[in-house]
Amino acid sequence: MIPLNDIPIIEEGDDIADIVCKSISIRDEDIIIIASTIIAKSEGEFFSLENIKPGNKAIKIANRCNMKPELVQAILDRSNECLIEAPFILVEHKNGSICVNAGVDDSNVKSGLYLDLPKDSDRSAREISRRITELTSHNVSVIITDTNGRAFRNGQIAVAVGIANIEPIRDWVGEKDLFGNELQITQEAIADELAAAANLLMGEGNGGTPVIIIRGMNLFSNKKCSVKELYRDNEQDIIRKGLNALKNNS
Amino acid sequence: MIPLNDIPIIEEGDDIADIVCKSISIRDEDIIIIASTIIAKSEGEFFSLENIKPGNKAIKIANRCNMKPELVQAILDRSNECLIEAPFILVEHKNGSICVNAGVDDSNVKSGLYLDLPKDSDRSAREISRRITELTSHNVSVIITDTNGRAFRNGQIAVAVGIANIEPIRDWVGEKDLFGNELQITQEAIADELAAAANLLMGEGNGGTPVIIIRGMNLFSNKKCSVKELYRDNEQDIIRKGLNALKNNS
Repeated sequence: MIPLNDIPIIEEGDDIADIVCKSISIRDEDIIIIASTIIAKSEGEFFSLENIKPGNKAIKIANRCNMKPELVQAILDRSNECLIEAPFILVEHKNGSICVNAGVDDSNVKSGLYLDLPKDSDRSAREISRRITELTSHNVSVIITDTNGRAFRNGQIAVAVGIANIEPIRDWVGEKDLFGNELQITQEAIADELAAAANLLMGEGNGGTPVIIIRGMNLFSNKKCSVKELYRDNEQDIIRKGLNALKNNS
Repeated sequence: MIPLNDIPIIEEGDDIADIVCKSISIRDEDIIIIASTIIAKSEGEFFSLENIKPGNKAIKIANRCNMKPELVQAILDRSNECLIEAPFILVEHKNGSICVNAGVDDSNVKSGLYLDLPKDSDRSAREISRRITELTSHNVSVIITDTNGRAFRNGQIAVAVGIANIEPIRDWVGEKDLFGNELQITQEAIADELAAAANLLMGEGNGGTPVIIIRGMNLFSNKKCSVKELYRDNEQDIIRKGLNALKNNS
């Protein structure tokens, strides 16, 4: 794991692939782990609350969460469904991921502005992977990360929110254990484990270190991969059914 | 991250600290990441289903999950509460962690036997840390890991189930962002991120590589630390309330 310590503050329009290639000599099969905030900044995903008119639902949730109604409206506008309305807001983002506040964040941005998630993080990852190959003629994988809370456990960890040229799940199906029996744990979410590993070196304070290289893992894939493979099917999701039961009861 | 590739198959009574110290030259502040299965094996936590008499609840759940009623009874015996009864069994283990099948596993053990989690993984971690210091006079941190499914996301990742000489959560409270504002994400579950990182090199097949050393992180702590700091307080846990609502509705 190699942290890139000289990444400048990213502005709209910056070419992150070019900045990465100037910071380190890329090798074949490097995995480039990038914090979603700098992707969103380079793509100009800023907004302010100025012209947002909160509806009744946003006002109700804002009161329960002690948040600005305009910010809650912005969060609802980005969501398919609100799973938890208070004391914090957990939604299914229009991109399919389950996240707090629809990923909207005001850390590390100028006062009064908010930052969205990248519009399509898989596409952003593919574009950076393609551009790094163009600049260096090396094949690389890209994982874009964000930090998430978890069920049952305190503290956030990083997860993958966009990927390119790496399969997000390593499948142990058919593998045998020490005694020749088939393994029960068969799917390892390696894109999330790589994201969590990189986050150890990223840090949060003062913008941290938003790009980490993981070298020597041999995980490059030519397949068209998507982070959506990590999103559980709604119908199978018992915890989601539980949150719906809670909403219906209240 | 350094995988120890020459760890033998662990048997009851083996001294894991001694085996680790013979495999690598330990340095001050190394973080020793160990799969819970080999700790449980060294502590002799095997059991068979022979003398287990399943009760009505175990028989009912076994039918819904297509599992052996004796195995379900063994799982219930190890649990404070069953949060999900089907199509898989999610419980609060008596040790306070939320896990599938109360952590009972039959991978990498002889046919007909099952392996429990270590009785007290924090204590096991402290004991290994103490013993490594005794053998090498270096201070080390220890994290014992297990793989877990997650809410909303496919695939398992490793998490910490026992720790010694490392604070499980890194607190960013009071830290400022690039623009001098206080950070919103304030608690990073570094013990879980270290577990996830190590799991990338552990593997599952044929017993894998159950010990990984993480070097150079400067995370050693003299405080008495516990993995329980990672377990969310019941009262605050909305997802848990949701699962209870689902049970009450059915």
